[in-house]
Order: sequence, then C-alpha cells, then structure tokens
Amino acid sequence: MSAIAVLGSTGYVGSRFARSLESRGFKVVGLSRDQLDYTRVEELVLFLRSVRPIFLINAAGFTGKPNVDACEAQKAECLFGNSVLPGRVRESCEQTGIPWGHVSSGCIYSGKRPGGGGWKETDKPNFSFRSPPSSFYSGSKALGEEVLEGADGCFIWRLRIPFDHEVHPRNYLQKLLHYETLLEAENSISHLDEFVESCLKCFESGVEPGTYNLTNQGSITTSQVVGWIREAGVADKEFRFFEDDDDFMSKVASTPRSNCVLDTTKAERAGVGMRPVEEAVKEALDRMKKVCLA
Amino acid sequence: MSAIAVLGSTGYVGSRFARSLESRGFKVVGLSRDQLDYTRVEELVLFLRSVRPIFLINAAGFTGKPNVDACEAQKAECLFGNSVLPGRVRESCEQTGIPWGHVSSGCIYSGKRPGGGGWKETDKPNFSFRSPPSSFYSGSKALGEEVLEGADGCFIWRLRIPFDHEVHPRNYLQKLLHYETLLEAENSISHLDEFVESCLKCFESGVEPGTYNLTNQGSITTSQVVGWIREAGVADKEFRFFEDDDDFMSKVASTPRSNCVLDTTKAERAGVGMRPVEEAVKEALDRMKKVCLA
Repeated sequence: MSAIAVLGSTGYVGSRFARSLESRGFKVVGLSRDQLDYTRVEELVLFLRSVRPIFLINAAGFTGKPNVDACEAQKAECLFGNSVLPGRVRESCEQTGIPWGHVSSGCIYSGKRPGGGGWKETDKPNFSFRSPPSSFYSGSKALGEEVLEGADGCFIWRLRIPFDHEVHPRNYLQKLLHYETLLEAENSISHLDEFVESCLKCFESGVEPGTYNLTNQGSITTSQVVGWIREAGVADKEFRFFEDDDDFMSKVASTPRSNCVLDTTKAERAGVGMRPVEEAVKEALDRMKKVCLA
Repeated sequence: MSAIAVLGSTGYVGSRFARSLESRGFKVVGLSRDQLDYTRVEELVLFLRSVRPIFLINAAGFTGKPNVDACEAQKAECLFGNSVLPGRVRESCEQTGIPWGHVSSGCIYSGKRPGGGGWKETDKPNFSFRSPPSSFYSGSKALGEEVLEGADGCFIWRLRIPFDHEVHPRNYLQKLLHYETLLEAENSISHLDEFVESCLKCFESGVEPGTYNLTNQGSITTSQVVGWIREAGVADKEFRFFEDDDDFMSKVASTPRSNCVLDTTKAERAGVGMRPVEEAVKEALDRMKKVCLA
C-alpha cells in the first residue's frame, strides 16, 4: 500500500487530507510535532528515507487562534510555521526526491485584479509585507511562497476561507452564524473537501507542479451568503453588518483582513477546478440544515 | 564571577564580545548550536535556569557567505536566523527574567533622512520587505526588530559595516582592499571593538533598554576611505569604481545593497556614543599599516 505523509495531520485542513486519502486506500502517515520534529531537516529526511512515502502534504502552518489577529502577538512562531517550515520541507523533499504539495493561501491578495476579474497565479501578491498594508499572517504566507520559488516537484495549493457542512470553528459558514456582526466583502472561497479532492487529483493525474488557486469558481459577497443561509432555513436570525471596513477595524479587528477574488482558470484547464461557488455553498447549507433538523 | 551568555560566540561579532567580556573579568558562556540548540525555547530556558547568566547577548544571525546575495538563495534559513531566532530568545529571556541585547543592523535603511541627516531610532525602516526595494537579508533583519517590539529588558544594538585593523573577510577595510571594483556610496559604519564596548556599557551603566544606532559619529564615502587608505600607505594600488549603482547591480550583485547614514544622537546622550568616524578609520588604518610593516 502506497504511503503518503501528511504534516499537520491533526489540524482542520490536514485531518481532511488524512480522511480523504484513507478513503482512497492510501496508507496515511500523519506527522505531528510531538512525535517527530518535522521542522528539522535531518529528522524529516531520516523519516522520509525510512518510510519512503510517494508524496508528502504540508498542511501545517500557523493561522492564529481564534483568528489572524493572534499572529500579530506571535510573530516569530507565525514566521516559523508559514515561512521557514515550507523551506525546511522543500529541502527535505529535494534531498529525498519526494514530490509534495504545500497548502498556501489566497489571502496574499486584496480586492480584484486591476481591470476586473480575479488574481491569477502569475500576479504578484498585493497584500503582503512587500505590498502593504497586510496582516502579519498574510505577510508570512507570501514569504512562504517566495521560499518555495523554483522548488522541484512542488505544488502550491492556495486555499481561501474554507467552508462546508461540518462543525468546526474555522468553517466560514459557522463563523457567519456565530459572529455578532458581519463585514460585507467580496471573496473567493473554498469548499474544504472539494479543495482536498482537487489537491489529490493534482498528484494522481500527473498535473504539472506549480501554483494553483483552488477556490470554487466565482466569488460571493457576505450578504449573498447570508441570503442563502436564510433561504435554506439554517438560521432566521437578523444578521447585523459593520458600517464599513473602518467600523470593523475600530471595533473588533487589530490587523487588516484580506478580501479578494481569485481567478481559477489555471486549475480548471489542468482538470482540477472546483464547482461554481453558489452550488457549493448551497449544497453545504442543505447538509447543515439536515444536521440541524436531525 | 558573573556569567554572561553569548549566542553565536564563534562568529565575527560574537567572538569580539567574548574577548571583550573576558578581558573585563566576566565568565563568558559561549553557546554554539552544535552543543546546545539555543533556537529551541525549552532548551535555552533550561540552560538559562541552570547557569543564571546576568545578561545574554544574541550575536547569532544569518548574514550569507560571502555576502548578502547568498541570502536570496537561502531564504528560509535567513528568516530563521534573523527573524525567528530573536523571538525565541525574547521568549526565553522573558520567561527567566534575564536582560539581554540583540545585535541588529542599520541596513534596514537606505540613504539619508528626508530633509537631511541620519535616520533616527524612531524612524521606520525604509529598506525592508514593508518598504521595497530591499534585499532578503535587510527584510529579515527588519522583521527581527518587529518581533522584538515591546520586549522586556531588551537592547537592540544596530551595527553597520563593521571594520577595524584585524584581519577578517567581513572587515570593511579589508574588503575595500580586496575587491576588484568599488561602489561609491555614503555610509555610517561601526568600528567593531568600539561597537562592542558601547554595547557592554549599555548594561554595565544601566542605560535604558531599547534601540540604539551604534555607528561611529558621522558618515564616510567610499572614495574618502580610499583616500585615507592611500594616505596611510596601507596600499598604493589604483582603486577602480563602478560607474553607478546600475553598473554595480548588473556586474556583481544580485540583490540591492543598503547604503545609509544613521543618526547617533540617542547613543551619545545615553553615554554610549562612538568616536567620529574619521578618527576611528584612521586609527584602524595606522594599526593595519604597522601590521603590514612588521
């Protein structure tokens, strides 16, 4: 049975990779830092040489709890998890010749592309340390991608605001249901299981390594999703909105948030595209409703 | 005998700290990563609890060999050494209540302050990831200072282009003598032993913790120093210069260099100022000449 190594296999994203891989018949070797310090090249290389996985997935990173504001107070660990670790994994995989994928983020962009439409993989980040303002989190994720420039056999998979029907504090739909006040914004977002499927298709179908925006096709606004939530009958509460970004920043946030639209043409052409966003959100809401009624 | 811990004690800067501390009668506990991985908070805390140094000096960092161009190819380790490590040391020193000093760099600035004069400690870096262009090295040093914002009992000592009479590949005067072609630029620079003396005075004299520009007073241009080298009779070769920055960048450099002037008023007022730069350079050249003639 072919083994696949997953770094951060107990996290929100990593655990989905593990579940999906197991259901496909792979042997998942989940690594957690308590057991093996995979942030050290020597240790990770030793492990890779003994287990010989056919692929490695880096789903480890530092997101901040409960949200990215926390990264402002934990800058060193944020940089370590999001910028340094990808480089250590790169070195280990290049030494052992193992292909791999890195879970990156679309949060290194803000808004839409000049002239309209979503940001393409060839566009430089415009919400990063090099293109202020940015959050420390976004800055660290953009540096992580710089560290991977030119890496051999490496996929960079950009996830954005994960959601689906399963209960988790990081699920976007659950956040919308629980936040007292919402921020109106336009975003591309990723159905989490579908994101994972697209990633796994990348290496199963021999897609060319490189960077891929893996969000559902199109974009949503917060008020659109709120409308769908009410339509689906998942909640009938009154949703309140901040007046604007300044109101949001002054009341609840300590660092700016990325709100952005991504272009997914490259993924679609490679055969790893994701459903239109409205379809994915509505399906997740239907499943949430069934759970609520059950 | 009071112990002082020095991280990076075998490096160009760290070894000078060790030598100077020993001559002052301190017990120097030099840490090198081969013996103890001081980049791990748990290990460094255990060490600090058992040895109880009265002060710690972080002279470890990633400068790139032979120069900062190398950092562009080793981004993860550059970030780790210059941005993450200071945070780990901070955490360890805060946990154990040990005051400490971090060797930072003035290379996070470019040029002079708008309106003239040198950059002050209160000025935001203008040669960093947040203020492009910068080298990856300068970006990582500026992030290292961000990581230390608000740190308890912490000195940030900014060194710039170290020099003196001793033979070392990183000695600025030696570089000028050995480079085939020179870049004309104006810079504040630091006599290395004098820099170390100023740092040690900081904690010996109870100076208030914080950031200090520790360069010799004033600034020099490359051609001025070349003139002094010829005057002192250290070398009588013809020095060649690049036409301009573009010529330099296209011929030998792969990343832009910081050339900048720093304001040293804060250090002088605190009683830890350094000699006027002309005096320091000329004295170093005189001593170099004596070595050459001996």
